[in-house]
Amino acid sequence: MTTEVSRHRRQRRVRGAAATRRARATEDAPQAIAFITRRLRPYDMLDEEGLERIEDTTERILEEIGIEFRNDPPVLALWRDAGADVHGERVRFPRGMLRAIIREHAPQSFIQHARNPARSTVFGGDHTILAPAYGSPFVTDADRGRRYASIEDFRNLVRLTWMSPWLHHSGGTICEPVDLPVNKRHLDMVHAHLKYSDKPFLGSVTAPERAADSIDMARIVFGERMVDENCVILGNVNSNSPLVFDHMATSALRTYAAANQGTIVMPFILGGAMGPVTGAGAVAQALAETLAGCALTQLVRPGAPTVMGAFLSSMSLRSGAPTFGTPEPALACFAMGQLARRVGLPLRQGGSLTASKLPDAQAAQESADSLLPTMLSGTNYVLHAAGWLEAGLSIGYEKLVIDADRCGAMHTLAQGFTTDDNALALDAFRETGPGHHFLGCGHTMRNYETAFYMAQLADNQSYEQWAEEGSRDIVARANAYWKQQLGRCEPPALDPVIGAALDDFVARRKASMKDAWY
Amino acid sequence: MTTEVSRHRRQRRVRGAAATRRARATEDAPQAIAFITRRLRPYDMLDEEGLERIEDTTERILEEIGIEFRNDPPVLALWRDAGADVHGERVRFPRGMLRAIIREHAPQSFIQHARNPARSTVFGGDHTILAPAYGSPFVTDADRGRRYASIEDFRNLVRLTWMSPWLHHSGGTICEPVDLPVNKRHLDMVHAHLKYSDKPFLGSVTAPERAADSIDMARIVFGERMVDENCVILGNVNSNSPLVFDHMATSALRTYAAANQGTIVMPFILGGAMGPVTGAGAVAQALAETLAGCALTQLVRPGAPTVMGAFLSSMSLRSGAPTFGTPEPALACFAMGQLARRVGLPLRQGGSLTASKLPDAQAAQESADSLLPTMLSGTNYVLHAAGWLEAGLSIGYEKLVIDADRCGAMHTLAQGFTTDDNALALDAFRETGPGHHFLGCGHTMRNYETAFYMAQLADNQSYEQWAEEGSRDIVARANAYWKQQLGRCEPPALDPVIGAALDDFVARRKASMKDAWY
Repeated sequence: MTTEVSRHRRQRRVRGAAATRRARATEDAPQAIAFITRRLRPYDMLDEEGLERIEDTTERILEEIGIEFRNDPPVLALWRDAGADVHGERVRFPRGMLRAIIREHAPQSFIQHARNPARSTVFGGDHTILAPAYGSPFVTDADRGRRYASIEDFRNLVRLTWMSPWLHHSGGTICEPVDLPVNKRHLDMVHAHLKYSDKPFLGSVTAPERAADSIDMARIVFGERMVDENCVILGNVNSNSPLVFDHMATSALRTYAAANQGTIVMPFILGGAMGPVTGAGAVAQALAETLAGCALTQLVRPGAPTVMGAFLSSMSLRSGAPTFGTPEPALACFAMGQLARRVGLPLRQGGSLTASKLPDAQAAQESADSLLPTMLSGTNYVLHAAGWLEAGLSIGYEKLVIDADRCGAMHTLAQGFTTDDNALALDAFRETGPGHHFLGCGHTMRNYETAFYMAQLADNQSYEQWAEEGSRDIVARANAYWKQQLGRCEPPALDPVIGAALDDFVARRKASMKDAWY
Repeated sequence: MTTEVSRHRRQRRVRGAAATRRARATEDAPQAIAFITRRLRPYDMLDEEGLERIEDTTERILEEIGIEFRNDPPVLALWRDAGADVHGERVRFPRGMLRAIIREHAPQSFIQHARNPARSTVFGGDHTILAPAYGSPFVTDADRGRRYASIEDFRNLVRLTWMSPWLHHSGGTICEPVDLPVNKRHLDMVHAHLKYSDKPFLGSVTAPERAADSIDMARIVFGERMVDENCVILGNVNSNSPLVFDHMATSALRTYAAANQGTIVMPFILGGAMGPVTGAGAVAQALAETLAGCALTQLVRPGAPTVMGAFLSSMSLRSGAPTFGTPEPALACFAMGQLARRVGLPLRQGGSLTASKLPDAQAAQESADSLLPTMLSGTNYVLHAAGWLEAGLSIGYEKLVIDADRCGAMHTLAQGFTTDDNALALDAFRETGPGHHFLGCGHTMRNYETAFYMAQLADNQSYEQWAEEGSRDIVARANAYWKQQLGRCEPPALDPVIGAALDDFVARRKASMKDAWY
């Protein structure tokens, strides 16, 4: 058990059903940092008045306009019993109702256990967890270009994520393995996360039985009781913005929550299409939708882990296409960070986002201008931290390792700016004096090894050295790097009995269904 | 006169000699935004204790260790007269002395007048001015690759900067025109700024007579009295870190200040070489050096405009080379922004910095991770906001226009996050309701034209459209764009009498000197 996880357990707000959950003790030592604990204070962009105006708008949306929950009658019954105003599928919420449910039942933070306890992560508080991109039907690399993703790509990307010291979480649908039937591919995806990685991961949400399969596979690895009492898997469910949850979302949500597993509730709002074209309105809407989904998990099972989410994007006025790395989502990200801290739930948002088709300067600029605000906003879980291209339609091998390198830099950034005596270095000035370099002084000798983050893929050589080595851009270096990484990858050990049980489960479930391709 | 400049004049702290300076009134209307006025609050990373610990270290450095002013006896006399402790060339400063000089005499903010009054800029306060890169001996573009810069490149880069709506300032030595003699090229550089641009600019600092030539050329354009009473030109002088000012810096500083013109005082500290390897110590040192230089300008001429500066870089532990876009300088940037606001002087720092040789993903990532902290720190003057490559050894044509595009995004970011009724968009929710898109609603119609920053060079098309148009990366698009811009460039009008007088001045000065090539 890592120190951070232990410390978290001590600090955690103890209340309700959440307080009864206890993590498995273990002797394993951590092999790398399992997640970031930020010492850098978040950037509080808005003042109290601005925050209250957004929160008031959220409450008005919930009270006056409400949210539709479609084709899932049990959800309407839960809302009616909880005191909401239900007309047909439209649910309106008395002011403050959702916050009260969350405050009473939902854990402010929680541990997601990994099969390697040293990789267990803490969602919430000052912690940030970085995970690769999610959901793209295409993959691309510098050798083969863009193509439909396969399960082999999926496994490669799980391996590369597992090998990165800077990605804490294996993600979920890293890419869609479109060479497998739609109704069976979740089995191979969850299998890959469990076999080729020992980092925590997300399960399927595309149908309630696929969510159930994901949780059943977790039970094989972690044991029934462990799963009932602890979070070992999460599902990422999307509201159908504006102000709708469809059956796919709520049935997956109910499946995860009923099993005491985690649910991330994620509105995706392209401003001007699925929400207002102005940022504050889009944020108010995202807050309304995610509060509704998070509160719903608590009606299903009080104390079930849940995570607020927001994905707010700007739009090209030329084409209506979503745009990324633009200033408007950065500002919304800062606002959402503040609002989530006031709710007191973990927050997922942001990532290394771009509309570019290639890992070129546009991709890097947009990704940087997404990820830095994500970090400064105090976000807790960052899906899409590495690999994203083409507005999420594609994941890039080179992009994955380039982004992961930057995730390393974010570890250093998150440690903040130290002003202790060693950092102030008065002894160094006394030793050197005006006009003398600091290269050999005692203070430098004591500190240089940890002084600066060293990017793996950045080139800082002289022009002449760089030219001599082939004038390679970062894509060429990244291409060589991911191949080298895959070449030397040895998957983490998995108990053969558990491995066989997983194989058997997957085989049985596949045999029980006909292939469906859409 | 722009409204911002007028407003600034009303708001400006009136005191000392600075209060007697008055700007020229004019009827010209602004043609574009002359500079950014931030509504986004700066990111205050450090608490009061952290800030005080750095400031205390700065005072101890100044008091105990002091600063050397080499080969410039008049400077030592000025310090002695002001009450500093002068031993040889080493000057030690009683605690608080430099801040007291600055507080008493230096303007908190000032106008740098442009020859087109609509382009005049305000240094200080909530204002940010973006300018191109400075000082590289090489230029590079996608067609011709890297080569020594020429005066033709210099003029091209002045033109491209002039045409950008997102760069407010023409910069100074945009590149070194190494095809011209070292002792004469300043004449052609200042000439180019005045001829091919009407934005404000920096003069020469490489020798006192070159600084004087720069100011004399400004006098031709602005008139003697205008120059004596107003800031129309600035020089950017570097301290010789650690804790040294050499004659080149102080003689240029004295020349600008004596003429009542501006001086930016800029320490460049590569942590571990010219300063401590820890950030807080490097910031304390930068603060000491820039306070000393800024205070010195006030001893030369009370009320002369002056700007604090800091350029703090991390270092590759593999090679000792400077690195950029890393987390350590970002953190130092946030700290320096807070410290400068407490001094009450304008601040120059940051930019779009990178060690990459090409405008690839490394360059863009490092540049973004430099420029966003620069903006969030509340920096007032950003040299190197566009074009920088290869740790400053090279400026790129494509990089310049790619960066300028991002500078446009920074304009939107700086406007902050509005939470007025229109932004909260409750009427849009009432009009649409759950499940209906916002594309045609009244709120969207009223707001969409100004809702999102539209980058010039970013591609947001579908993959198919993008492939059909040649699968171009952003460098290919930027290459076409800068050529198109140069092709349609028509320089701003210049009074033919003034133009002839400038030509004559340059010819006479060149005829008075033999060519010097080093």
